[in-house]
Amino acid sequence: MKSLVALDWGTSSLRAALLDGQGIAREERTLPRGILSVAAGEFPAVFEDACGDWMSAGSPLALIAGMAGSRQGWIEAAYCPCPAGFSDIAAQLAWAQPGRVAIVPGLCCEGADAPDVMRGEETQVFGALSLLGRSSGVLVLPGTHSKWVQVQDHRVQRFATFMTGEFYALLRRHSLLARTLPAADGEMDEGAFRRGVDHAARSANLLHAAFSVRTLSLFDRWPAAAMPSYLSGLVIGEELRSQHLGAPAGPVVVVGSPALTRRYVLALDTLGVASQPVGSQATWRGLWAIAQTLESTA
Amino acid sequence: MKSLVALDWGTSSLRAALLDGQGIAREERTLPRGILSVAAGEFPAVFEDACGDWMSAGSPLALIAGMAGSRQGWIEAAYCPCPAGFSDIAAQLAWAQPGRVAIVPGLCCEGADAPDVMRGEETQVFGALSLLGRSSGVLVLPGTHSKWVQVQDHRVQRFATFMTGEFYALLRRHSLLARTLPAADGEMDEGAFRRGVDHAARSANLLHAAFSVRTLSLFDRWPAAAMPSYLSGLVIGEELRSQHLGAPAGPVVVVGSPALTRRYVLALDTLGVASQPVGSQATWRGLWAIAQTLESTA
Repeated sequence: MKSLVALDWGTSSLRAALLDGQGIAREERTLPRGILSVAAGEFPAVFEDACGDWMSAGSPLALIAGMAGSRQGWIEAAYCPCPAGFSDIAAQLAWAQPGRVAIVPGLCCEGADAPDVMRGEETQVFGALSLLGRSSGVLVLPGTHSKWVQVQDHRVQRFATFMTGEFYALLRRHSLLARTLPAADGEMDEGAFRRGVDHAARSANLLHAAFSVRTLSLFDRWPAAAMPSYLSGLVIGEELRSQHLGAPAGPVVVVGSPALTRRYVLALDTLGVASQPVGSQATWRGLWAIAQTLESTA
Repeated sequence: MKSLVALDWGTSSLRAALLDGQGIAREERTLPRGILSVAAGEFPAVFEDACGDWMSAGSPLALIAGMAGSRQGWIEAAYCPCPAGFSDIAAQLAWAQPGRVAIVPGLCCEGADAPDVMRGEETQVFGALSLLGRSSGVLVLPGTHSKWVQVQDHRVQRFATFMTGEFYALLRRHSLLARTLPAADGEMDEGAFRRGVDHAARSANLLHAAFSVRTLSLFDRWPAAAMPSYLSGLVIGEELRSQHLGAPAGPVVVVGSPALTRRYVLALDTLGVASQPVGSQATWRGLWAIAQTLESTA
């Protein structure tokens, strides 16, 4: 395939890239057209707006990862149940425009008490492993809703969602703690962040640990400027506390933006766990790999 | 003492009672004059407004519990460090008007990583134990910030705060979960509430467990109407999970409003723990007991 149009179409934004014959991004665009801003029926027009020129210029195929495949998206791509491999998601694409535009399905798995789901992260997972040349491992994809994923022999065995980014934002902006925090986050305070991670691990309950943001200020033990970093460490530490990181096969793979992966690498290091960051090119690599599979089975 | 003016002066409201010679409330009033609504210097006027008539009619003393003793209150009543007994708080009253109006100090204790504080609950704790004729026990005071308190031989040994009510409100109203929840809470669904408590205990991480509110809706496993009760169970269950309730000396004492104590009694029952509710008269009883002590040592 001489080129591929790759899209990461999420809730609040649409990212697109034109990949060349080697799967390298030659052009990238970000539009504020997440699915929440797109009315039913409007998806084809937004797609043409975002990538029509690339398609006209000769790209035969567009592949989309993310919430565009949800019930509120372009067309619904049913979740693949875990364990699920790369070939499963490649075989269950939902064609928005047959032969031209396809959406990658998300994954679901059955937890102890409730199901769990992801959409978009499955593509990052397979892309990141491909970039690293690994077939197994523990991956974390930090964000509003972080995903922890266990992969063995190229198959996602199970995963779990943690509402970490969202809890941080709620506590940072809407809770009573917000009153004692400075308006801007400022520079990250690495020491305060690590203490937060550590406190979360020992306290083992965020409902309790979060109150220390208030009491440490009340007794003037810590400067207010350190508190956002401390709170961030508390919430990320609470997420890490629940992982079984005793002896993962190789370093934990952290997939995401540089700002977020930096925090997770630091948090894992605080707990003595090695990690390896991978950037957002993981999505492009995952979509490229699916396109290769389609071509070879066509 | 033939009568006592008792106040529970908190952040968002002021409750006052005129207690008779036996400590029974003869009249009660609630004013929307929590300390957040009172400017510095305005406290004496608000007090006269609320209880001036009772004082003029012959009550020699007013005792105040709650945030009126904080740095943002009438005058600051320094925290008593734990272990602290009833006689400690009675001996360290902060006199807002010498001989006439006094504020009960809060308690502080040193946790593993950070201090903890309470203000107002100490009076409820001693009042509840007095009402029940107990000298030791485990007490919980549910609320925006719940307190778990261990008392031995009439002394608070230690306590811990859980931001349970606040987390519930944040998730219920401001999180992405709110989109799938009905606008009104409706009748409490006891079965859904118990399942939430149970799930929290097993999941052992609210960042993860809370996401089940979304996935159970997504797969239509549960009716939306049951979800607020389920979420309430999850958050209260997360609080209970961290308590060492193996063999408390007698039933756990739950102090608070009927609506809240009912939920905690149910949650504890779900975990097989016996409990005993006590209503808001605990505050009046606690203040009355302090007044008796003052009289006997005068």
